[in-house]
Amino acid sequence: MAIRSGRNYIESLRDGREVWHAGKRIEDVTIHSGFTGTIKTLADLYDRQASAEDGDTMSVVRDGERISYSYLPPVNAEELRAKRGNIELWSRETFGQMGRYPEFCAELVVGMLDFADTLAAHDPRWGDNARAYYQHCIARDLCLTHALTDQFYDHSKRASEQRDPDLFLHIIGETSEGPVVRGLRNLATLAPLSDEALVYPIRPRGADEPDYAIAFAIPMNAPGLKIICRDLYAEHVDPERFPLTARFDEIDATLVFDDVVVPWERIFAYRAPELVGVFHRNIQTWAQYATMVRLITKLETFLGVAQLLTEWSGRHKTPGSEIGLATFIKDLEIQRDCVEMAEHRGYRTAAGLWAPLLSPSYRVHSIEASDRAERNMEDLLTSSLVLTGGGSDLAEAELGPLVDRYFRGLAPTTKEHLRLLAVAADLVMTPFGKRGQLYERLQSGEVDNMKRRLNAQFTERDGAERMLAFINKEW
Amino acid sequence: MAIRSGRNYIESLRDGREVWHAGKRIEDVTIHSGFTGTIKTLADLYDRQASAEDGDTMSVVRDGERISYSYLPPVNAEELRAKRGNIELWSRETFGQMGRYPEFCAELVVGMLDFADTLAAHDPRWGDNARAYYQHCIARDLCLTHALTDQFYDHSKRASEQRDPDLFLHIIGETSEGPVVRGLRNLATLAPLSDEALVYPIRPRGADEPDYAIAFAIPMNAPGLKIICRDLYAEHVDPERFPLTARFDEIDATLVFDDVVVPWERIFAYRAPELVGVFHRNIQTWAQYATMVRLITKLETFLGVAQLLTEWSGRHKTPGSEIGLATFIKDLEIQRDCVEMAEHRGYRTAAGLWAPLLSPSYRVHSIEASDRAERNMEDLLTSSLVLTGGGSDLAEAELGPLVDRYFRGLAPTTKEHLRLLAVAADLVMTPFGKRGQLYERLQSGEVDNMKRRLNAQFTERDGAERMLAFINKEW
Amino acid sequence: MAIRSGRNYIESLRDGREVWHAGKRIEDVTIHSGFTGTIKTLADLYDRQASAEDGDTMSVVRDGERISYSYLPPVNAEELRAKRGNIELWSRETFGQMGRYPEFCAELVVGMLDFADTLAAHDPRWGDNARAYYQHCIARDLCLTHALTDQFYDHSKRASEQRDPDLFLHIIGETSEGPVVRGLRNLATLAPLSDEALVYPIRPRGADEPDYAIAFAIPMNAPGLKIICRDLYAEHVDPERFPLTARFDEIDATLVFDDVVVPWERIFAYRAPELVGVFHRNIQTWAQYATMVRLITKLETFLGVAQLLTEWSGRHKTPGSEIGLATFIKDLEIQRDCVEMAEHRGYRTAAGLWAPLLSPSYRVHSIEASDRAERNMEDLLTSSLVLTGGGSDLAEAELGPLVDRYFRGLAPTTKEHLRLLAVAADLVMTPFGKRGQLYERLQSGEVDNMKRRLNAQFTERDGAERMLAFINKEW
Amino acid sequence: MAIRSGRNYIESLRDGREVWHAGKRIEDVTIHSGFTGTIKTLADLYDRQASAEDGDTMSVVRDGERISYSYLPPVNAEELRAKRGNIELWSRETFGQMGRYPEFCAELVVGMLDFADTLAAHDPRWGDNARAYYQHCIARDLCLTHALTDQFYDHSKRASEQRDPDLFLHIIGETSEGPVVRGLRNLATLAPLSDEALVYPIRPRGADEPDYAIAFAIPMNAPGLKIICRDLYAEHVDPERFPLTARFDEIDATLVFDDVVVPWERIFAYRAPELVGVFHRNIQTWAQYATMVRLITKLETFLGVAQLLTEWSGRHKTPGSEIGLATFIKDLEIQRDCVEMAEHRGYRTAAGLWAPLLSPSYRVHSIEASDRAERNMEDLLTSSLVLTGGGSDLAEAELGPLVDRYFRGLAPTTKEHLRLLAVAADLVMTPFGKRGQLYERLQSGEVDNMKRRLNAQFTERDGAERMLAFINKEW
Repeated sequence: MAIRSGRNYIESLRDGREVWHAGKRIEDVTIHSGFTGTIKTLADLYDRQASAEDGDTMSVVRDGERISYSYLPPVNAEELRAKRGNIELWSRETFGQMGRYPEFCAELVVGMLDFADTLAAHDPRWGDNARAYYQHCIARDLCLTHALTDQFYDHSKRASEQRDPDLFLHIIGETSEGPVVRGLRNLATLAPLSDEALVYPIRPRGADEPDYAIAFAIPMNAPGLKIICRDLYAEHVDPERFPLTARFDEIDATLVFDDVVVPWERIFAYRAPELVGVFHRNIQTWAQYATMVRLITKLETFLGVAQLLTEWSGRHKTPGSEIGLATFIKDLEIQRDCVEMAEHRGYRTAAGLWAPLLSPSYRVHSIEASDRAERNMEDLLTSSLVLTGGGSDLAEAELGPLVDRYFRGLAPTTKEHLRLLAVAADLVMTPFGKRGQLYERLQSGEVDNMKRRLNAQFTERDGAERMLAFINKEW
Repeated sequence: MAIRSGRNYIESLRDGREVWHAGKRIEDVTIHSGFTGTIKTLADLYDRQASAEDGDTMSVVRDGERISYSYLPPVNAEELRAKRGNIELWSRETFGQMGRYPEFCAELVVGMLDFADTLAAHDPRWGDNARAYYQHCIARDLCLTHALTDQFYDHSKRASEQRDPDLFLHIIGETSEGPVVRGLRNLATLAPLSDEALVYPIRPRGADEPDYAIAFAIPMNAPGLKIICRDLYAEHVDPERFPLTARFDEIDATLVFDDVVVPWERIFAYRAPELVGVFHRNIQTWAQYATMVRLITKLETFLGVAQLLTEWSGRHKTPGSEIGLATFIKDLEIQRDCVEMAEHRGYRTAAGLWAPLLSPSYRVHSIEASDRAERNMEDLLTSSLVLTGGGSDLAEAELGPLVDRYFRGLAPTTKEHLRLLAVAADLVMTPFGKRGQLYERLQSGEVDNMKRRLNAQFTERDGAERMLAFINKEW
Repeated sequence: MAIRSGRNYIESLRDGREVWHAGKRIEDVTIHSGFTGTIKTLADLYDRQASAEDGDTMSVVRDGERISYSYLPPVNAEELRAKRGNIELWSRETFGQMGRYPEFCAELVVGMLDFADTLAAHDPRWGDNARAYYQHCIARDLCLTHALTDQFYDHSKRASEQRDPDLFLHIIGETSEGPVVRGLRNLATLAPLSDEALVYPIRPRGADEPDYAIAFAIPMNAPGLKIICRDLYAEHVDPERFPLTARFDEIDATLVFDDVVVPWERIFAYRAPELVGVFHRNIQTWAQYATMVRLITKLETFLGVAQLLTEWSGRHKTPGSEIGLATFIKDLEIQRDCVEMAEHRGYRTAAGLWAPLLSPSYRVHSIEASDRAERNMEDLLTSSLVLTGGGSDLAEAELGPLVDRYFRGLAPTTKEHLRLLAVAADLVMTPFGKRGQLYERLQSGEVDNMKRRLNAQFTERDGAERMLAFINKEW
Repeated sequence: MAIRSGRNYIESLRDGREVWHAGKRIEDVTIHSGFTGTIKTLADLYDRQASAEDGDTMSVVRDGERISYSYLPPVNAEELRAKRGNIELWSRETFGQMGRYPEFCAELVVGMLDFADTLAAHDPRWGDNARAYYQHCIARDLCLTHALTDQFYDHSKRASEQRDPDLFLHIIGETSEGPVVRGLRNLATLAPLSDEALVYPIRPRGADEPDYAIAFAIPMNAPGLKIICRDLYAEHVDPERFPLTARFDEIDATLVFDDVVVPWERIFAYRAPELVGVFHRNIQTWAQYATMVRLITKLETFLGVAQLLTEWSGRHKTPGSEIGLATFIKDLEIQRDCVEMAEHRGYRTAAGLWAPLLSPSYRVHSIEASDRAERNMEDLLTSSLVLTGGGSDLAEAELGPLVDRYFRGLAPTTKEHLRLLAVAADLVMTPFGKRGQLYERLQSGEVDNMKRRLNAQFTERDGAERMLAFINKEW
């Protein structure tokens, strides 16, 4: 097997993993209301990989096996374009609301394949492990998470200086099968619904902190690994009233490594502060690309909802609405151009893959656009965002006719109006929607750091050179 | 009786009112999990009106009866100050999170008392009705809502021009007891938990639209009145994880008047477009004051949470945190000054009451401050806002010790850390918190209209006069 | 002749035109200190059109004549690219500071050529006139201005409703040579240094206002045409202290048509309200393109100055500086991408020319970028912007050595430091710099109108359609 | 003498001081066109101190001498109020455009008097010197500047680590009359038109940098002191076109101390890093108050100009204009309230004076308001800001009548319109106006530092305490 079916995905989640929520152990995630909507969304999409309609958009035959485009290491512009088609399909089916659809981490594994030579330069075993892991994932069409973030520590001190040495994930010993790690990692999005986790730090480690400098992969049912979910937003919600929450919640989780043995063959960097410090940046090229493409769809979603709801309230011709809609349009068009330019300037990596040339400028713009979208939606829809009713009222015998009459606005039907109002509210008013905004803003680290990197890597001096020539001419 | 007890309040809610939520009729709001937290909050506060500790802060004896300061029509600065003490107590107990605590609408009734002469000038019965209604409310310490907003209509057309004439609340006939009204009103906050509703439009009506121009009061159990709740945010939540939602949700509701008879003695304006157009603006002085005082507490809440959580993560000494905290402090200090200046410039109204001199400038500032507070909190707390865990994990035998160890940060105890993180998330990430932001932004109408009013009422020309003198001097 | 020489340009300005400044008639603009710097800049650039070094970048042989690329009507992507090379050369030599370099209006004439068929559809003579005017301009390599803006009227009334009917330029009669026009037009940038003016209104005229609806060209020395200059910023300045002002001031001027006869063969639309209402929008494609390309250079200038001055003060490695520089870089990269995408999506016009596909989104972005650039420069350079010293101090025997010692910072030489500080101040602190900011912001009309046009012309509904499908599925 | 006359002021400027501008020594500042306008402004105001009309607003008799309120050390609220009257008069006569009117530094000397005990605690001579200097200044009604800012050094290194040790002002030796100092100080506003300068650093000095830690006063004609002016904005301007520049330019200057002997009796701190580090903050109370009062006038000026010009263009009733004007009004009202609250919360200093309680919050607000004012003015007046014409056109025989007809708008007369347009442009478009904006933004140091101080000094924990109580209650 190479592309998986929805059934295969669901079955893989019943593997004894230790998932916790609100003080209770969840024995089987596949039947818990906090997960079932999202699982169905993903399972349906996995099934479509083999469908007549979408199969060729989502997957391709390589070496006799049909594989997901998510795992295809592209070697030319055409393959990159094919990958984009797959990204768009996943994004559109999820309205751009799932930042951590399986595509994202699959692309990190493609990035690891591309980075394997550098890993091997540090230690040949690490390069081999990375390549083997890529084969492992693609063969099983695995759904991964990653866990980069330390949390709940004293930010004024380094990893090794905390009063409790275990707060940061670190190596506490070795066995013949592999090192033993202990500590916490956070923001492992989709963790309870993933097969495995990629684990490496996003913050730098000191040269004197080798125990804190490790990169590896681990299955979610590894003994000692506890998955603690943040609130399961979907747990109790009526899908008529929270249609996005009910389908697309990605569940950020905390991973507590309570003395977990990591197999030696899953180690990609070990006691290597310098290497883990650049690990993430070097493997994320295609994952970032997937994010940028997805954000096009997300902006289209905001725009589309706003177009319809301003029309359905008769406000779409007011200057305020026109200007608000144009703000979405402007950001959308520029987001699209950023992606097209990144493709247009594609380049061959040292390892021979074909990569889009993404500038941190694009990410900065996309974050600003996402922030603007939230506020813009609020300004366009104002108090109607509070009135999250829903189609569930319509079915009721006594109330239904009144709701049908009074809640329609200028929509074709009241049901459409109520549902779209519910979608709008779910985009900006719910923990699901707000968490989505924070995710876009924070997922690549702090914007200020992104800007500092942008400045550091920008080596052009055209304006400065012209100015130097000017001030050194005779005036 | 004059000040009510919590028990009295609760009993008053079991009056046959027709409350709907998610397609189901709620027979008794006092035992529904969507309401019980908020009812307890209010009942406890009502009980404190007679307590040894707070009784004199919250109530005062007048004409042999102890009345709530909320209903006191102040006649001097001292009484206004006493009212402020009561406002502060209600605000602090609710952390500034309840914009529609009973105080608010009680102050509207005080405003109606002040406005009664003007009403009487239009029709003596209306003035009498307003004064009688004031006595009715104070004698029972009633909890009111108000319903001002039309919704779900074609905004490009006037009230009387909609394709369905009933979309806007209007008079459809008369009986001996009173007129019959039909149509919808929205954003009746706290409606399912109120005794009665004040009903008048916030948008102007045309001189040719007298049927749409009516102001009145109506009990929530009036035959034909349907109360349709927006989502009951508190319905399923764990208070350890959504502590504010669980206690302070005010439940905005839609009122559908399905042919409701309004008693003649509850009419304050009738077929009077001009008068209803200025009704709200003229009765809201003390209600706006209560809002401004409450917002001090709300900003203190944001600041306090941010102070503690930045300390507990060891980030409070970073420049970014210091600047973020200072942003709260600046807005808080200016908000306080606005209130103090409004008191300092208090004036006697035509009807003889003592009123704070509130400028629309203050409301504009407070709205901007509220918007900044939301974003500032997100910037200060970043991804920890997503990790809404909660004390419920701590009690579990197996997981508890791990959570206790790993989630404490620098807080005195892990429980405090988890609870405060839950509070922080509930301020900005939940429908409760987001709705609170929208409420502050929209409750006095659109900011742009507020600004236009500010400009219209600002008659000073000092700068212009000096400039005219300057340009007419010899240069 | 087809490309002109600097000498030819200068001589053309001595044609009896009536130029006024500060209450005085300027008989010969070519020897007035308010103009000489800018004239030299332009004359030098005209000379380079025939130079060995730059001739082929700036001009091309067509039909045996060497013509400026500014006037080339491009028929394919290659020619558009060649035009860009010319635009870049002009922009770089002027550091992007001259929005109205001759290129701009030359491109409007190319646009008129492209628009001639539509003009002819209204009246064959107008189409002929447009084509003939194009030949007239290209054959002489003319330097033009345009005059679109009405000014100093009662904005609450229409053109024909002003208390003085002459405030808006309008037709007051006809002669055999042509109609007689009277009234004012404003913001005729570069007018005193141009050969002719294109005249048409940017604000719409009513169908009942035909006298106000005319488009034509007129030489600057037409009898009755008065050119009133705004302050000549360059008049008294020391180039060591205001190096940009001294070289690049474009002099916006007011044109008063004191009964001017316009030759019939220079009329492009006459008593044609509808046509003049769309005239500007239809002829500006390549002019807008030239603006977008120029703005790349302008942003490079801001960035280059900021890079050097933060380095020379030892501040370039502070987080604040890095973030500030990155803000320039981000806007620059996106500005570049906008231009490249516009080229990439080039299309053939109805008249057969090759045009870049510019979205209003790009202009909106470029305006926002320009606004950010001003503020960003101020934040990066703070009080050093006030200290506009200059190399003139260095030459002085007693003071020079002290200045040399104390004003150098980390620059290679004090002279370079002082000159670059003077450039920086001239970008944001002087009337020249501030006017440049306003020019970028306002030259294409108000941003809000641009946004409303963007919304009106954006016909995509992808997000809306997906959402409609979603809410009509079974939930 | 105690209050001075204009003539006395002018004469005091002819004292042999060494003033430089654009590479030339200015022998007599009182007859140089870069200074005469400002000198006249100040001299006229000095004369009014003894006038029948304003004498009692500006000055008061103490110990038989009439002294300026600027130098009065207030001991109660009434005296503070009297000082405010004087501040307002100076501010209004200068439209809030002179941040460094003599009032400002006079108040610093009042602050030094208040601070004398602390100085004496370090060294009794310093306390005595401060008190004596106060008497020296008040007796002569001196006009002072101050010089706090180091410039043009390597910001990544400390004062003592620069490659040239003289870049920062420091002590290089001692004589019997006093220490010898060498180096540069910057932003000595009004220096060429002041009697003396207060000199102390605003940036901290290290404990190991005693030579760089000195506070003193020095007359402007001290041997070895060179005053290098930044561009004299007023030098060539037509007052009809730059009416503010022509009257109110304050001329920031660089002071080069080329081995200047400072008399021992003018030393207020000597080789005292810790003390000079807090010197400025401790003496600026009344100077900051004067700034806050002045900014009221400045905002009134912006508002007044915008009111008139929107009226004169018929745009004052558009929503955009109303909202823009309201933005000024809101900031103005809050600025006023800040000042009134500071007075209302007045307190007695340790030395017995009566001080307004100014919060850094107020300064932060006033800076934000000033920034908003600039942009708001641009948005309200748009391209009319570029059209700086002026009354000088009106006088011309041929052009005058045309200008009179076409430039009037809805103003009472064209002259008023032209003059007011010139004022508007001078507020935001000229080096004078832009420098004014930077002055407001930077004069109290960087806003971020101000915010960090605000946070540091804000000790309230009300919100935090309530929250701690809440999370420690039973939930």
